Amino acid sequence: MADQEKNKNNIENRWTWLDSGVAAPKGFFATGVQAGIKYQNKYDVALIYSDRMAQAAGVFTRNKVKAHPLVLTQKHLEDGQAQAVVVNSGNANACVGEAGDQAALAMACETAKCLGLKTEDVLVTSTGVIGVEMPVVRVVSGIQAAAAEIKKLVGTNSSLLEAGVQADTDSKAKAETKVKSEVDNEAKTGSEAEARALVHEHGTLAARAIMTTDTTLKQVAGELGCKSGVIRVGAMAKGSGMIHPNMGTMLGFITTDAAVDHAELKDLLVQAVDESFNMVTVDGDTSTNDMVVILANGASGVTPEGEELEAFKELVSEICVKLAQEIARDGEGATKLIEVKVLGAESVDGARQIAKAICGSSLVKAAIFGEDANWGRILAAAGYSGADFNPDLVDIYLGDVIVASEGRGLNFSEEKAKEVLEQKEIVITVNLNSGQDSATAWGCDLTHEYVTINGKYRT
Amino acid sequence: MADQEKNKNNIENRWTWLDSGVAAPKGFFATGVQAGIKYQNKYDVALIYSDRMAQAAGVFTRNKVKAHPLVLTQKHLEDGQAQAVVVNSGNANACVGEAGDQAALAMACETAKCLGLKTEDVLVTSTGVIGVEMPVVRVVSGIQAAAAEIKKLVGTNSSLLEAGVQADTDSKAKAETKVKSEVDNEAKTGSEAEARALVHEHGTLAARAIMTTDTTLKQVAGELGCKSGVIRVGAMAKGSGMIHPNMGTMLGFITTDAAVDHAELKDLLVQAVDESFNMVTVDGDTSTNDMVVILANGASGVTPEGEELEAFKELVSEICVKLAQEIARDGEGATKLIEVKVLGAESVDGARQIAKAICGSSLVKAAIFGEDANWGRILAAAGYSGADFNPDLVDIYLGDVIVASEGRGLNFSEEKAKEVLEQKEIVITVNLNSGQDSATAWGCDLTHEYVTINGKYRT
Repeated sequence: MADQEKNKNNIENRWTWLDSGVAAPKGFFATGVQAGIKYQNKYDVALIYSDRMAQAAGVFTRNKVKAHPLVLTQKHLEDGQAQAVVVNSGNANACVGEAGDQAALAMACETAKCLGLKTEDVLVTSTGVIGVEMPVVRVVSGIQAAAAEIKKLVGTNSSLLEAGVQADTDSKAKAETKVKSEVDNEAKTGSEAEARALVHEHGTLAARAIMTTDTTLKQVAGELGCKSGVIRVGAMAKGSGMIHPNMGTMLGFITTDAAVDHAELKDLLVQAVDESFNMVTVDGDTSTNDMVVILANGASGVTPEGEELEAFKELVSEICVKLAQEIARDGEGATKLIEVKVLGAESVDGARQIAKAICGSSLVKAAIFGEDANWGRILAAAGYSGADFNPDLVDIYLGDVIVASEGRGLNFSEEKAKEVLEQKEIVITVNLNSGQDSATAWGCDLTHEYVTINGKYRT
Repeated sequence: MADQEKNKNNIENRWTWLDSGVAAPKGFFATGVQAGIKYQNKYDVALIYSDRMAQAAGVFTRNKVKAHPLVLTQKHLEDGQAQAVVVNSGNANACVGEAGDQAALAMACETAKCLGLKTEDVLVTSTGVIGVEMPVVRVVSGIQAAAAEIKKLVGTNSSLLEAGVQADTDSKAKAETKVKSEVDNEAKTGSEAEARALVHEHGTLAARAIMTTDTTLKQVAGELGCKSGVIRVGAMAKGSGMIHPNMGTMLGFITTDAAVDHAELKDLLVQAVDESFNMVTVDGDTSTNDMVVILANGASGVTPEGEELEAFKELVSEICVKLAQEIARDGEGATKLIEVKVLGAESVDGARQIAKAICGSSLVKAAIFGEDANWGRILAAAGYSGADFNPDLVDIYLGDVIVASEGRGLNFSEEKAKEVLEQKEIVITVNLNSGQDSATAWGCDLTHEYVTINGKYRT
């Protein structure tokens, strides 16, 4: 009982991290294939499928210029449900007129046909070059190949599914965890383990297929022990590194086998995204295709309520934060992850504005690249963020080193600051000393490589 | 008469450009000296002096964090008049607490003492590293040396001043001009010419003394023929290139011998700055010290009214635009000047938002550096600018080459686009086709050199 109390107070202990992604939750299958949309030998079509109807919600770019598939997906989400998501990289399907609407619809139709679904239950997302017509024939072939793989996976796993077992979990992660999942307690046959491994591998291929200039595959999954069973949440994302193709995009896909209503999903997704994806800045540019969607198929049989619902929300938020950090760390040309914590703010909005302004300042980013303890730029960025605060109360820390207090420079140890700045992860803490609210933003340094990548892409 | 009519319709012909700066208008003297504030052999204290009280107005940074001299200058401008401006580079005098207020006041007091003025009639500006206390002794010595030079200039020129003659004008510029200035029609003795040349040279030293990472000296002057005499306007500026020292700053100083009330000055300055300095973006960062001030001493004896007042306002605006372009062209590490024209907007504010978002987009800037006709990034930047427009109506031009129409990519000639992008000045035109308003913004490309400069400064 004492341990349980402890767990409640320690978020990290409430759930177990799994070495998996969108295919971790029960009833979800995913894969990626090579359709040759822009490059050969590149996974570029991903398919996520739920074996039953799922409640669904999404948040979308605020850019006035919206890609064609994004508009279709918004329409298909109006009824709050979906059963599949099809994604391609290599072409953003944006700014090409009617042909773009037709291509997005063709992708939904083909996916529906192959998987025996209604077109309106398929969500469509694209990322890649803007203004170039989608090679529809190639994408359709890719969808067919991906759907065939999915059907094989579903077939192989149907017996396991009924036993409530699916994606594998990482043995190392398990050893470190406090909460044991139900899966651990079940007997596993060789074929079950193989089938689970296959589902996991194919899920990873989906995460691979949505990558563009990303240098790392981004997926994460966790499971939460509830009184009536185990809930799993899986996710994959791609980064906002922006070129090659033209306008990269921040995409996030979250799956869960919890039973959660789409209105509740929407609320928790908005909150999670506001604290995570919306707090990432690589270069300040917002794409025409940015989108995060969540699907909850209820296959776990667990409807989280009360404290369990709160824990579920926290897990989703934490998953989004992990992906956001990965996106920032993998910003184009980045060598360092920058985390900016703003404390003591009068409002969360103000704290977010300041954290993002600091994280997005080219001067701060270049100083971090150059490992220069240039706190004046940090304070100046806060100053132009648009948020209200009293500069004379501000303390600034680089890691543990306080470099400015009450808005003024301190005679800090340049060596200690240098030690902090030599790390791969730099935490900048700004205490406004004016209130109780806080926010965290993530970004990366500005490097020569960023300029090279973004100066070259199309040729 | 026909020629006069023509001149009225052609702004360029209304005035004559002079090869001079803040010392061009009657009664104004300026100089720069080496005070050793941060570096040896660097001009770092500038002084502008009017031989009579001037009407004055200023616009200031919107950054919440304001440098100490900026606060003092705002106070000294409350009565709408000033007679001298003292500027130092090498130290921003920002974020150092009470010592900063004292240093700013000391600069005003010393200037006033040396020139026989009231302290409240001296404006103070600093640019340089943030958070380091000002070496007041060195600055005060610099002010004394500068004031001594100014007094010599005033003495030598007193007879000339009475004849209404002062700064020299560029002979080449004269040959090209349509409007002859009164100066041309006066007999010049050798000593007069020498004295004028000296005033001009010292004015140029002032422009040199305010430079930080600027690679080019930025000054401009023009004269406008009015019925009752000639008005001159002179100006100097420094760029927003941001490092070395720490937080560079955009500073502009405008002088005129027109007789214009400070309320009128304030209005026309706000408008001119909104169309020029405020439309420049090098890296999106706003400094703690940004400031533009205008002084009008009435020494010309001309009070512009009606059409002449309009022409005067246009001259001030045009001078600000020229300086803004120079600032953009001289952005840190820049190799190209980018001019973004937004046409067909429903409001000027909207057009400005869009023009600035495009000019400030790291992706657009890097694409221009890479000479890549990446119009998708231009449209996407417009999309996230926050301004309202219909993406399906937008046409985009690179130079004369139309690359997108009605929000969609065209099959344009990559060679022709490349020809445009190989130039040193790139004009991007975005026609929203929704209204009659327009705006222009200036920026520069994002280069490896920018990253190098901004990663290195302090060590």
